[in-house]
Amino acid sequence: MASPRSLAISFFVLLIIPAISARISVIKLPGSDGSNSAAKTYCESWRLAAETNNAGTWNVIPSMCVDSVADYLNGDQYGSDYGVIADYAIAFAKSVQISGDGKDVWIFDIDETLLTNIDYYKAHGYGSEPFDSNSFNEWVVQSTAPAFDASLRLYIALKKLGFTIVLLTGRDEDQRSVTETNLRDAGYSDWERLLLRGPEDQGKSATNYKSEQRSKLIVAGFRIHGNTGDQWSDLLGFAVADRSFKVPNPMYYIP
Amino acid sequence: MASPRSLAISFFVLLIIPAISARISVIKLPGSDGSNSAAKTYCESWRLAAETNNAGTWNVIPSMCVDSVADYLNGDQYGSDYGVIADYAIAFAKSVQISGDGKDVWIFDIDETLLTNIDYYKAHGYGSEPFDSNSFNEWVVQSTAPAFDASLRLYIALKKLGFTIVLLTGRDEDQRSVTETNLRDAGYSDWERLLLRGPEDQGKSATNYKSEQRSKLIVAGFRIHGNTGDQWSDLLGFAVADRSFKVPNPMYYIP
Repeated sequence: MASPRSLAISFFVLLIIPAISARISVIKLPGSDGSNSAAKTYCESWRLAAETNNAGTWNVIPSMCVDSVADYLNGDQYGSDYGVIADYAIAFAKSVQISGDGKDVWIFDIDETLLTNIDYYKAHGYGSEPFDSNSFNEWVVQSTAPAFDASLRLYIALKKLGFTIVLLTGRDEDQRSVTETNLRDAGYSDWERLLLRGPEDQGKSATNYKSEQRSKLIVAGFRIHGNTGDQWSDLLGFAVADRSFKVPNPMYYIP
Repeated sequence: MASPRSLAISFFVLLIIPAISARISVIKLPGSDGSNSAAKTYCESWRLAAETNNAGTWNVIPSMCVDSVADYLNGDQYGSDYGVIADYAIAFAKSVQISGDGKDVWIFDIDETLLTNIDYYKAHGYGSEPFDSNSFNEWVVQSTAPAFDASLRLYIALKKLGFTIVLLTGRDEDQRSVTETNLRDAGYSDWERLLLRGPEDQGKSATNYKSEQRSKLIVAGFRIHGNTGDQWSDLLGFAVADRSFKVPNPMYYIP
């Protein structure tokens, strides 16, 4: 019969060493592997095309770009991109003359703008799987999405400058309560309005729905100075803000 | 008196070794030097902010980003970015129903869109020096700016699909002849109109000037399906195209 020690050694040889070898075999050396380097370059171009709206409507991220998108989201660049955008937004906000009548508005989208659903998308292929509203709604009701550090910083700075905050989301009206809980737990507070899709908004494109909501704000006397969203459909259409700030989202596209 | 050999050795010790040491001392190892890595991350974020128009108006590139911008422009990524955008533009163009009446238009800007002035900007700090119209105009009259490969490919594909090409540039009317020569030498031909700034357009912002020109095309019965430019002022304003394609330019911003 084998001694405990020889069993332990066998365990090491049988499991640990192959595991280490397997890890070594999948290490990618950028630049040393031509095809990997070409994929990396392509995927950077794809991400820029998506961010600048050159890609137009897309359903899932290119399958060859899953690793590249995951690296981006899990590395420092993603947070840095939000940070630099927040800096530009704050610089613009400081240039706005605040009237003091409470009508100077900054609009924020919620998902991938104020709150990050990265934990959900990590478990769903980083946007390589088609969007599944059932499983996403299960995630939403958990109300555990954290804030982006830079977005919370921007939000607090805007409040301090005297802006009225309006939250305009594609989430449904029946998710109001879980959304408020999540926002508060993540550190957001004192928004003027939280606008969600009502029954009359079902079936509208995000661009139309959000443009209509902005239009109603303008009719109500609000001045929309700034708007921050991760989708172009948060920002384009009609009744657009004086300045729109597009935060990155290489995981999904909402028309 | 020293022998030729000892002189040669002295020369090696005095000049070559310090030169080698100097070279070694400036080698940058991404990731191993915290500040260099942080600058790289910041500059990538700045470039994305500029490309998405989040940065708003800017005069020169951040001084810390000169190396990063030069690396981008001189590496494979810059050309790849144009290539991926051209692919999306061609895919859209193929979806357009061409009427055959010659009124289906695609607009191109010229500088940094059809023609690359990289050789000029290489000699002027890649956008870190304030724009100098005198020296740039000296470059323009040389008529030696090459085509972007991807832009020429897109241009030829659009012609083949039956689009009418309109070139809309911020260059002045008195540069018409040198511009035509440069475009033809670079491989472009058979455009319908080349629109340059006339005396009445001086002092107008690029956004207004270009919007007015697009508006006149629409009044003349043209349908503007696509528009490609390196500046948001090529694309935004009024009378915008059905689809706008923003090609990259991290060197300068024109409001």
